[in-house]
Amino acid sequence: MALDPRRKKQLQTLVQKLGLAAHIPVNWSLLDLALTHPSISPDANYEQLEFVGDAVVRIASSELLFETYPNSSVGEFAAIRSVLVSDRILAEIAKCYGLERYLLVSNSAAADTIGETSRLADAFEAVLGALYLSTHTLELVRPWLDPHFQQLAAEIRQDPARQNYKDALQEWTQAHYKILPDYRLTETSLIHGDTDRFTAQVWLKGKCLGEGKGRSKKAAEQAAAKQAFGKIMNYE
Amino acid sequence: MALDPRRKKQLQTLVQKLGLAAHIPVNWSLLDLALTHPSISPDANYEQLEFVGDAVVRIASSELLFETYPNSSVGEFAAIRSVLVSDRILAEIAKCYGLERYLLVSNSAAADTIGETSRLADAFEAVLGALYLSTHTLELVRPWLDPHFQQLAAEIRQDPARQNYKDALQEWTQAHYKILPDYRLTETSLIHGDTDRFTAQVWLKGKCLGEGKGRSKKAAEQAAAKQAFGKIMNYE
Repeated sequence: MALDPRRKKQLQTLVQKLGLAAHIPVNWSLLDLALTHPSISPDANYEQLEFVGDAVVRIASSELLFETYPNSSVGEFAAIRSVLVSDRILAEIAKCYGLERYLLVSNSAAADTIGETSRLADAFEAVLGALYLSTHTLELVRPWLDPHFQQLAAEIRQDPARQNYKDALQEWTQAHYKILPDYRLTETSLIHGDTDRFTAQVWLKGKCLGEGKGRSKKAAEQAAAKQAFGKIMNYE
Repeated sequence: MALDPRRKKQLQTLVQKLGLAAHIPVNWSLLDLALTHPSISPDANYEQLEFVGDAVVRIASSELLFETYPNSSVGEFAAIRSVLVSDRILAEIAKCYGLERYLLVSNSAAADTIGETSRLADAFEAVLGALYLSTHTLELVRPWLDPHFQQLAAEIRQDPARQNYKDALQEWTQAHYKILPDYRLTETSLIHGDTDRFTAQVWLKGKCLGEGKGRSKKAAEQAAAKQAFGKIMNYE
């Protein structure tokens, strides 16, 4: 079915916003589908493209990390990638381009403000899927996505608290054992703000893999996860 | 560092076995690295390429499913992909090409027969990473990987028991809520072999998402997971 000329013009505007030249070989029908919410059509919507896009964002971020930080450990890669591919970050990037203005969605679904982040992230992944499938390369993706990921990766590396070792560890234990790591917390100091206030241990299959301290419960768990992750990567 | 001519010849044999022409633009140093186990070198081994390859196998399988089964639901895609990217399947394909003969590994690590499947799957992913990075496309991957995935996907679709809805559901709940689904089993019939012997319910965040019956505990859980997955995909 031919695309409505007004819709096509709208999509061309978006593609120009991404910094892509007007003559690029975009599959416009796919891009239209990528920006159609299931509330508009139960059959012809962004779900399948989101499935492909989930893999696209993974390969784009992996390739970028491999090229940019050739001396980093796989643990660091995994920790950074888990942040880059998160709904929160993808929705943030989507907002830079005002993606919500191009998304066809029913009024009732649009009114669901709680679901906004995941809706935007899903549509964004679908757009990446459509652009990837237009050429079967990352040519239409990396030129504009790389600068976002580069800046974010640099920020994440500078701020250890943003390095999500908990997510990275969880992803690993899931993939290898189909279980989640078990965190055990103790309050080791009662002084509020003490950098060693909490101690966390992370256990897997009856073994303590890591221990860490922190000002907050979350920080202690991240420290424990970081140690565990390092151990696993050296052991593997 | 230039590659040892004997090693290069060995790698060329492998590439020919994959059905790729001799003159293809392979990055031989990367392929060499992809087939170097961490037990040989703690720094220069397949780990980083495996990280990239994990994303490559995901995009290759997603693209194939999208092209081959355009009318399938995302739930079915996810269930099939979770089998295709599993260590068990990747190690099986690796064995077709005798990948273990090309893998540089210390004697002590090679003696670990329990770890063989994951070692082979890891090296195989790394090879996919190296081939992908040689051209930044799937040109050196899909020509020989597609037939394996096509046959496996067809088998998985024909045999519902191989459709891993439990894994697919788990992947989804992990990604969205960072929790695992909770299965509750009851033995509803005491007759051995009764197709409705077990009833499983799957719960998430205090809600029962699906129920299923089966001859075995596993079959009942898969049936419950399938219902839950269908519900989630329609709701999303």
